[in-house]
Amino acid sequence: MNPSTLIGMITGLAVLAGVLFWSATDPWLFINLPGLAIVLGGTLAATFISYPLKEVLRVFRLFGTVLRNEKLYTQDDIEELVRISRLWIEGNLPAVERELGNVRNPFLRVGVQMVIDMTPEEDILDFMQWRIARLKAREHAEAQLFRVMAGFAPAFGMIGTLVGLINLMFVLGDGDMQVIGMQMAVALMTTFYGILLANLLFKPVAVKLERRTEQRLIVMNMVMQGISMMYRKRSPSLMRETLKSFVMSFEDEIHEAGTVSASAARRPAATKASVRDG
Amino acid sequence: MNPSTLIGMITGLAVLAGVLFWSATDPWLFINLPGLAIVLGGTLAATFISYPLKEVLRVFRLFGTVLRNEKLYTQDDIEELVRISRLWIEGNLPAVERELGNVRNPFLRVGVQMVIDMTPEEDILDFMQWRIARLKAREHAEAQLFRVMAGFAPAFGMIGTLVGLINLMFVLGDGDMQVIGMQMAVALMTTFYGILLANLLFKPVAVKLERRTEQRLIVMNMVMQGISMMYRKRSPSLMRETLKSFVMSFEDEIHEAGTVSASAARRPAATKASVRDG
Amino acid sequence: MNPSTLIGMITGLAVLAGVLFWSATDPWLFINLPGLAIVLGGTLAATFISYPLKEVLRVFRLFGTVLRNEKLYTQDDIEELVRISRLWIEGNLPAVERELGNVRNPFLRVGVQMVIDMTPEEDILDFMQWRIARLKAREHAEAQLFRVMAGFAPAFGMIGTLVGLINLMFVLGDGDMQVIGMQMAVALMTTFYGILLANLLFKPVAVKLERRTEQRLIVMNMVMQGISMMYRKRSPSLMRETLKSFVMSFEDEIHEAGTVSASAARRPAATKASVRDG
Amino acid sequence: MNPSTLIGMITGLAVLAGVLFWSATDPWLFINLPGLAIVLGGTLAATFISYPLKEVLRVFRLFGTVLRNEKLYTQDDIEELVRISRLWIEGNLPAVERELGNVRNPFLRVGVQMVIDMTPEEDILDFMQWRIARLKAREHAEAQLFRVMAGFAPAFGMIGTLVGLINLMFVLGDGDMQVIGMQMAVALMTTFYGILLANLLFKPVAVKLERRTEQRLIVMNMVMQGISMMYRKRSPSLMRETLKSFVMSFEDEIHEAGTVSASAARRPAATKASVRDG
Amino acid sequence: MNPSTLIGMITGLAVLAGVLFWSATDPWLFINLPGLAIVLGGTLAATFISYPLKEVLRVFRLFGTVLRNEKLYTQDDIEELVRISRLWIEGNLPAVERELGNVRNPFLRVGVQMVIDMTPEEDILDFMQWRIARLKAREHAEAQLFRVMAGFAPAFGMIGTLVGLINLMFVLGDGDMQVIGMQMAVALMTTFYGILLANLLFKPVAVKLERRTEQRLIVMNMVMQGISMMYRKRSPSLMRETLKSFVMSFEDEIHEAGTVSASAARRPAATKASVRDG
Repeated sequence: MNPSTLIGMITGLAVLAGVLFWSATDPWLFINLPGLAIVLGGTLAATFISYPLKEVLRVFRLFGTVLRNEKLYTQDDIEELVRISRLWIEGNLPAVERELGNVRNPFLRVGVQMVIDMTPEEDILDFMQWRIARLKAREHAEAQLFRVMAGFAPAFGMIGTLVGLINLMFVLGDGDMQVIGMQMAVALMTTFYGILLANLLFKPVAVKLERRTEQRLIVMNMVMQGISMMYRKRSPSLMRETLKSFVMSFEDEIHEAGTVSASAARRPAATKASVRDG
Repeated sequence: MNPSTLIGMITGLAVLAGVLFWSATDPWLFINLPGLAIVLGGTLAATFISYPLKEVLRVFRLFGTVLRNEKLYTQDDIEELVRISRLWIEGNLPAVERELGNVRNPFLRVGVQMVIDMTPEEDILDFMQWRIARLKAREHAEAQLFRVMAGFAPAFGMIGTLVGLINLMFVLGDGDMQVIGMQMAVALMTTFYGILLANLLFKPVAVKLERRTEQRLIVMNMVMQGISMMYRKRSPSLMRETLKSFVMSFEDEIHEAGTVSASAARRPAATKASVRDG
Repeated sequence: MNPSTLIGMITGLAVLAGVLFWSATDPWLFINLPGLAIVLGGTLAATFISYPLKEVLRVFRLFGTVLRNEKLYTQDDIEELVRISRLWIEGNLPAVERELGNVRNPFLRVGVQMVIDMTPEEDILDFMQWRIARLKAREHAEAQLFRVMAGFAPAFGMIGTLVGLINLMFVLGDGDMQVIGMQMAVALMTTFYGILLANLLFKPVAVKLERRTEQRLIVMNMVMQGISMMYRKRSPSLMRETLKSFVMSFEDEIHEAGTVSASAARRPAATKASVRDG
Repeated sequence: MNPSTLIGMITGLAVLAGVLFWSATDPWLFINLPGLAIVLGGTLAATFISYPLKEVLRVFRLFGTVLRNEKLYTQDDIEELVRISRLWIEGNLPAVERELGNVRNPFLRVGVQMVIDMTPEEDILDFMQWRIARLKAREHAEAQLFRVMAGFAPAFGMIGTLVGLINLMFVLGDGDMQVIGMQMAVALMTTFYGILLANLLFKPVAVKLERRTEQRLIVMNMVMQGISMMYRKRSPSLMRETLKSFVMSFEDEIHEAGTVSASAARRPAATKASVRDG
Repeated sequence: MNPSTLIGMITGLAVLAGVLFWSATDPWLFINLPGLAIVLGGTLAATFISYPLKEVLRVFRLFGTVLRNEKLYTQDDIEELVRISRLWIEGNLPAVERELGNVRNPFLRVGVQMVIDMTPEEDILDFMQWRIARLKAREHAEAQLFRVMAGFAPAFGMIGTLVGLINLMFVLGDGDMQVIGMQMAVALMTTFYGILLANLLFKPVAVKLERRTEQRLIVMNMVMQGISMMYRKRSPSLMRETLKSFVMSFEDEIHEAGTVSASAARRPAATKASVRDG
């Protein structure tokens, strides 16, 4: 499981539990099912109207994605590319195809397949860039769905509070502070739920999905670069160095006595796959 | 009818009804026509000042659009394109024109007509791209109209509440809590209406329209690609595969053992219709 | 007068009047000149500091623009362009110059004049595009001015309310609810004015100006296209069809049995005046 | 002094003074130094942490800039360019250099110097565009500084109010309405200061700086165009007309019987200095 | 230590301390550990869910970055480049490599190394631009992290206040103003903490990081320009002047009698390293 998400969730729940048990006379009073129903139901209703059914249902899958500790197997991808590239340069087509069967990254597989099929380089790169653009658009839309939900949740929390306050006003004349306090507490509960859901669930998930998309795009650009080098039959060792330079993080570019070897940084001479807004 | 919108509306109304019947002493008190008049009237007034008459009236048609379950007949479009393209390659112009009469997608029809009329390819693509850009601009403006309304509704809700509060203040000296509570309830009602309308009607409709536009743009880009291939007299089977790759969704591009056949992914060698911000 | 603005203003005032007469004990209490002075005076003061004198004074002219029912005479422009173009192809320069005197659209006139003066096409298009860009920038700045005012108005409304509340606090000790209520009512009045001005005046005007700019840009792009065709001495009938296709609205591009004739859609073969973000 | 800023400031202060003297029992109560210290001190503290020392100190200079009535001497610049250009075409280098000493606009001077030094045109334009970009970036950052301060001021106003309210709560049990009211008034004062500073000082200054930058960019683009024409030894009269067309404002581009002479609008045939997003 | 940050922090703490000691009956009441726990704990929890573990932990390092008084050694970089370039033109490769060992700026070092390795110029520039883009993306993400935290802090402050208010409501019936006041004070405390943290810590740090990134990008663009000139074996003195013009700030570009010597401004004739949105 994703360690960061786990830590975040445990911290969040611990803080919440601590606060409630420490401060509230009866913490269970904070569990108000009708209030939760307004906030969750309203948010879901608005989301259903906003998005096609298919996309809303995908939400549950996305929660799983956030929990899962996605490993990007970047290292494996580089090694596979280098291995296949070596076979390809040797002209050992059957071995390339056998190797291709073991490739787990579908984007890499499609690229290699297109090289084997003798597709012109420009078309391969066009197609790969188009798939990158599509993935970017789709994942952006998914993160957007959570941002939209993060906007709806506090609004429905406020709607619940308004309903509670309006009800309260009708009994204001009775002047029983006990009843008034109780009603007010219930009214405020929905705002509490709304802000909590938005800030501990929807917004963080949206941010995490966006960050993940960025990571994926870097890996996909790396694969595209590798496919371009394979097409041009560059030496496998040069390929490995170039691809590594793609994913390595340059710590403090400016004034640390870094150990970035310039050879690792050397990029192939004339690849056309220039990196576009990765 | 659009299932997602239906579910959303039923859920929304159910939650609302449930909450009111469960919590309110008299749910009918929540129906406050003057309050509704301020919010709806004010929002409409501001919208009328903001937009030309023609565009405001189009709003009602758009509500219908959101309810309708738009099917994009993508599959039909692909088949029609392939069929016409085959006739075109055979040089059977009368059959092409007969077939053209049955085409339901006007964008596709215009494109085919231009190919038949021997318009140069660059002009066809320019014209189609310009129509795509126009449709994008117009649909964006329509979604924007709902976003603007979603901004006006809570503002007029607050204006209503302020009027109520000010009236309340003038009678504050009487000190009759019964009257004060009643007035306050009525005052809060408009804020309730404003936030409800914005979050359960205007914003979701805006989001749905935006999503629909995105879908349409993908289909229109696909049609443009097909017209370009028809112009170049590419083989119909290659065309079918290429167009399908346009609309198929690539599930988890990176690490699932997908079954994307590379041949389906192979794009035509030298089409100029590069996909621009679909 | 612009029908939509008229409807909007009447609706807005009617709603306001209705609410006040229906709900308030004395509607005239809602006219609070010092409160209005704070909001309007403060908003104007902030606007004067924000913008050069010349631009603030232009505001009053712009209010007129919004009220006026601007007709874009698109049809006239197309006919004039076609007529002049025909004379130009016939080489009848004196007639062209006579016709030019009657042209009401200065942008069209400058374009025709440049063609007559034998300016190279690239320069004509450069110049026209630069004027389009300037008009866009200036009108955007004007709409922005109203957006800025829409931001200032509620802020000064709140400042007025704060002043009122602070004054109220100093007399809180007296405990006379009559006085407190009165003061509170006056305090809330400025917030009421601020939100009302922002949402019924400044924001709608800003949106309307933005929409108008968009319309103008489409017409100007059409004129530029026409000038380009005149320069290339295209047939007047082709010109008419092309220009019409510029301004016609494509209803439901995708699945209606439209009647868009492809010939009307056919664009001239090799004009360089490609439409840029109209 | 800048007339608009002056009017704005006098109006603002007059409105404020009027309101306070008219409404408050004792206007001097509105001068609360500790409250002002929180808002100004907090805003400055946050700004110091946000920006390098040098940039914060520049703020004071910028206030002066806003007050000053900047004249752009556009007419002088045009005349100087025309005069120098005439000498340059005549090949009178010593006169050009003498003239150059009188030029007050450093941007113009650098450009002329580069022409004299026989720098290739592309390099001159590259360099001038780069300086324009830098000026744009720097002035944008300066305006941003005021926007950031406009965000901090109300936040620290609210922090002051919260401190006041919390203090108030500790004495709530005493029930002395006199004391409570006084404390509350003081608490609200900081919010009042925060919103006032943001809306009557920081935001307007930010907007004014942004508008000024736009003006400067137009003038700088004009100078760049002139330098390009001087390099190409265009006729001085053509240059004067072209440059004027740059700074003249096109009133109502579309349907007024304008008097824009097309000759003034004629731009030089083959300058490469195309205007880029000025 | 960074003087501006230091001044800001001291001012901020002084203002805060002054206000609390001046206004509060007991300043220590403002230290409410459970309240701080909600705000900090909640903000951290949401941040952990939003970002991968690695990036959250980097936060602490970034606080250090903000405190540190980063010197950009721009002058040293220029001198080193000039020195190495001179040796390179003399063809003294061993001296260049010796000199290279002393270079502290890793970005400069990689560039020089690539020149020595005879990498084609286009590849060097591509690679350097790609590293600049990556640094920009990464530092933008880091600043974004603080912006996200600045959004979470007040939200969790409000959540704490809501919990406090709800608890308060349950004891409202007791009517003991002393207790109510105390509870209310504690409830408001979390909002106070949330706004304080956001405005005195998270937002300023985010702004400072963004400003720093801008500075770095200018220096990196300068280095790239220098490497390009070294590759083309331009004269070291021209290089020094060109690079200086990159980092010098043009005070008041338009109407001061500046002393910008045009020679310093002269840029090398045909470098391809055009500056892209630095």
